Amino acid sequence: MSGLIEHTLRGTWTPSGAAAAPLSPRALRWLRQRIGLAETTTPAVPTSLLEVPDSALPDAAREDLVAVLGAEHVRTDAAARLARAGGMSYTDLVRRRSAAELAVPDAVLLPADPEAVQAVLEVCVRHDVAVVPFGGGTSVVGGVDALRGSKAAVVALDLVRLDRLVSLDPGSRIAVLQAGTRAVEAESLLGAQGFTLGHFPQSFERATIGGFAATRSAGQASSGYGRFEDMVAGVRLATPAGEWRLGVAPASAAGPDLRQLAVGSEGALGVITEVAVRVRPAPEHSRYEAFVLDGWQSGVDAVRVLAQGRVLADVTRLSDVDETEVQFELAGAWKVSALRAFLRSRGVRRPCLLVLGWDAASRSELAQRRAATLRVLRGTRAVRLGRAVGENWRSHRFAGPRQRDALLDRGVCVETLETAAHWSGLSELRSAVRSALVRSLRRDGADPIVMCHVSHAYETGASLYFTVLAARDEQDPLGQWQRAKRAASDAIAGRGTITHHHAVGADHLPWLGAEIGAVGEAVLAAAKRAVDPTGILNPGKLVGPAR
Amino acid sequence: MSGLIEHTLRGTWTPSGAAAAPLSPRALRWLRQRIGLAETTTPAVPTSLLEVPDSALPDAAREDLVAVLGAEHVRTDAAARLARAGGMSYTDLVRRRSAAELAVPDAVLLPADPEAVQAVLEVCVRHDVAVVPFGGGTSVVGGVDALRGSKAAVVALDLVRLDRLVSLDPGSRIAVLQAGTRAVEAESLLGAQGFTLGHFPQSFERATIGGFAATRSAGQASSGYGRFEDMVAGVRLATPAGEWRLGVAPASAAGPDLRQLAVGSEGALGVITEVAVRVRPAPEHSRYEAFVLDGWQSGVDAVRVLAQGRVLADVTRLSDVDETEVQFELAGAWKVSALRAFLRSRGVRRPCLLVLGWDAASRSELAQRRAATLRVLRGTRAVRLGRAVGENWRSHRFAGPRQRDALLDRGVCVETLETAAHWSGLSELRSAVRSALVRSLRRDGADPIVMCHVSHAYETGASLYFTVLAARDEQDPLGQWQRAKRAASDAIAGRGTITHHHAVGADHLPWLGAEIGAVGEAVLAAAKRAVDPTGILNPGKLVGPAR
Repeated sequence: MSGLIEHTLRGTWTPSGAAAAPLSPRALRWLRQRIGLAETTTPAVPTSLLEVPDSALPDAAREDLVAVLGAEHVRTDAAARLARAGGMSYTDLVRRRSAAELAVPDAVLLPADPEAVQAVLEVCVRHDVAVVPFGGGTSVVGGVDALRGSKAAVVALDLVRLDRLVSLDPGSRIAVLQAGTRAVEAESLLGAQGFTLGHFPQSFERATIGGFAATRSAGQASSGYGRFEDMVAGVRLATPAGEWRLGVAPASAAGPDLRQLAVGSEGALGVITEVAVRVRPAPEHSRYEAFVLDGWQSGVDAVRVLAQGRVLADVTRLSDVDETEVQFELAGAWKVSALRAFLRSRGVRRPCLLVLGWDAASRSELAQRRAATLRVLRGTRAVRLGRAVGENWRSHRFAGPRQRDALLDRGVCVETLETAAHWSGLSELRSAVRSALVRSLRRDGADPIVMCHVSHAYETGASLYFTVLAARDEQDPLGQWQRAKRAASDAIAGRGTITHHHAVGADHLPWLGAEIGAVGEAVLAAAKRAVDPTGILNPGKLVGPAR
Repeated sequence: MSGLIEHTLRGTWTPSGAAAAPLSPRALRWLRQRIGLAETTTPAVPTSLLEVPDSALPDAAREDLVAVLGAEHVRTDAAARLARAGGMSYTDLVRRRSAAELAVPDAVLLPADPEAVQAVLEVCVRHDVAVVPFGGGTSVVGGVDALRGSKAAVVALDLVRLDRLVSLDPGSRIAVLQAGTRAVEAESLLGAQGFTLGHFPQSFERATIGGFAATRSAGQASSGYGRFEDMVAGVRLATPAGEWRLGVAPASAAGPDLRQLAVGSEGALGVITEVAVRVRPAPEHSRYEAFVLDGWQSGVDAVRVLAQGRVLADVTRLSDVDETEVQFELAGAWKVSALRAFLRSRGVRRPCLLVLGWDAASRSELAQRRAATLRVLRGTRAVRLGRAVGENWRSHRFAGPRQRDALLDRGVCVETLETAAHWSGLSELRSAVRSALVRSLRRDGADPIVMCHVSHAYETGASLYFTVLAARDEQDPLGQWQRAKRAASDAIAGRGTITHHHAVGADHLPWLGAEIGAVGEAVLAAAKRAVDPTGILNPGKLVGPAR
């Protein structure tokens, strides 16, 4: 148990067992030259140097919580609290590195089951203590920042002990999982019975089932398996207004789909304690391969044709010219010059990498689905690169967060952001965000690297995922990124959604009104008042006012 | 214009141009024998005999409404008001036949655009007048009953003049349609540009786009095209709290999906004025064919295997033994005894009819999709009946409501109800509802005919659609059905959803709490207060208290 709990104590992403991803000297040289990086290194400070304020949890509240959970599950030590001080955004990592002021919860609560979560909420209502539900701690939008709002104290409600597969209905293909179950563990529990969830976001190595539901997560294979909200058959929440269970049928016309209000509720409308998810037979076979399109627009057109032809591979990922270049340069798995020469011989001057991956229960199903995709792809100008590049992408699919630590050590400002729009507005959205990021991160004549890919495609549109690499402003690293993020978010507002799969959290809250309108904000606020009349649940996230 | 407006003046379903569906003497004989029907006929009374109370709309309200809409679009004559007095449930039809007391609106408002709808709401708030949004008037759950709640007057807000295709974005495959556009007209507008919506509920001949969205409609081809909520890319509503627009991207993690709160809001959370829908290329080819399974469970298993194999035909419809028998007996399109002999020769003693239909843009797409379905179907024990039976079903696909008028004339109590559940609970749900209906409609030793089919299948479960034929209790026809409906709804509660695609309306409201919980009801009530603080919108529907 304690191993599980300590698992979330981290200054870096790297989970135990997974290798960190250092930069090769070649990659580092290339990067220095591209973004004008200094030759210094700025490693993380030891956790012991971070200043942790004393716990502000009133004694009376602490006593009542201990009565519910037991003393060992009400932690007020600095290590436990520090481990739940925010998520994994660049801003979070910089704060943790530089001993800047962190929002540290006053205690960490570790309930073991849904009933204990409900009891904890009742205690917190009574003592007017703010509650931040905490899963894998992988939020990159300030979703688990220990903000206290108007409350005197704030606790992190860590769901790590809610880690059971409650039930599996193989005929209906529905599994009920407790919210704190990590994705890795869920796959293992389901895999033992021949099933998979098929949800593989980049946070896969740490994130939890409850976190996926709370944030409307999308995974790398969502083109095939659906977004997380598509998998949610039912949900159980603890709220100050009482327990709430939803999901008696696959579809219903019994009013609005309130499951879709619970999914994406970000801990502000209740604490998700169990999720009933649709599962599928674990695939026995898979195949990943790569293609190249010439230029962004022909790449987007190809993905659109696949989506509208309803023959998307489970993984469908198109990189723009900049991201393709970085992948070619940094991967080191192939000879870049030979690759370029080959592509030029096929008429491709501005390569955009398209990775397609299929999972299937049988060889014949895989062959049929792949054939259907390739039949439609033949109508585009895609050039085949083969399996090696596809499998290379696959083997590094969860490495991004680990690479980030290596980049941070080298003085790089590295962060991602994402959005989505309908097809007809996608290119304008990409240009606007790209320009905003380049303009705001240009320093001493050196431009940042701004990469973009489509990772999720729909019949009506697609997502855009941006990765930024810039030389860090060591004087004001937080301000540097906050200005860039603000510029990008302003560019997104009115053109696309402020987030396709990272959630609102604290960071996107100022732009939510532009997307859902004043009426939408009023409806969310009213729903919150109904379930959480005293406002203890995750203050400053999803529902205004912003911090 | 007036033609369109008068289109909704009806005592029967039959739209102009469509043929009524009289019963053949053979079918009538069979029916009499089966359900113990008297030889009397009970035709509808002329509309002119129905009593219409005087309009209770205050003069001051009327004057303000006339100022906004013009006098010709504020109708208080008996004919216009009677035409919007309720929907098309059996109860509605019986009320209209027997001159029983109808809930008649005090006026009919006919705005021409979203701005006028918004202006109407502001007038109605000012004068505290209840507003019932009205589309095709095909609700079978009391969704358009002119209930006045606590208000002194109630108006029907008929959206028939909002009938435009506002825009079409062919690249994104999104069409924006005004809410009052009838499905038939929408198909015609889209078809002229090569697209289809693909939404074909049995109400297709009358229902509107706004009604589909307000009720979370599902159509006969929803297995292929998706339920209506899957098609909604965006929505525009008029509310007393102001205009509300949603839907900037195909998917989003910007908090709960509020589109899914607007879809299914049944006029109680706003008046839907425009819907952005996902469209698809109009199919050039189609094929409908029939199969037979031996017994309900093997039929359900076959449909489940198709759904979980993700190779469902666009139309997938499985009838139980009773419904199959009625279809064989009443259709008259083939020799029943020869058919039965053929089936017995193939080992089928308890035939359950399975109709599959595919729509496709090309012959090769149709062939590929059909081959994928049949490949999986081969693993079941389905016996092929061929195209004639499939095409026969297709040609009568919208005839149900018209047949109902003929049955009513003959003294039959005829009504439908529907639910859905996960696969593992489906058979118990069917048995429980069936028993409840048979028990409560048994009269003088004669059992009703209770038929059931699966019309919508999902990976995790399916819908059940029941049709009831019983000899009408001429002394208390309303009470007879209300008791049966109550028994069926009690049987559904806890086993499935109270409605898979008919909405809550007034009729299902008493069972909504069992499905969404007290917290769910509180959230809906809070959302309503946020958008409709004085409660003018569709009183007594969706949000309690029940009438």
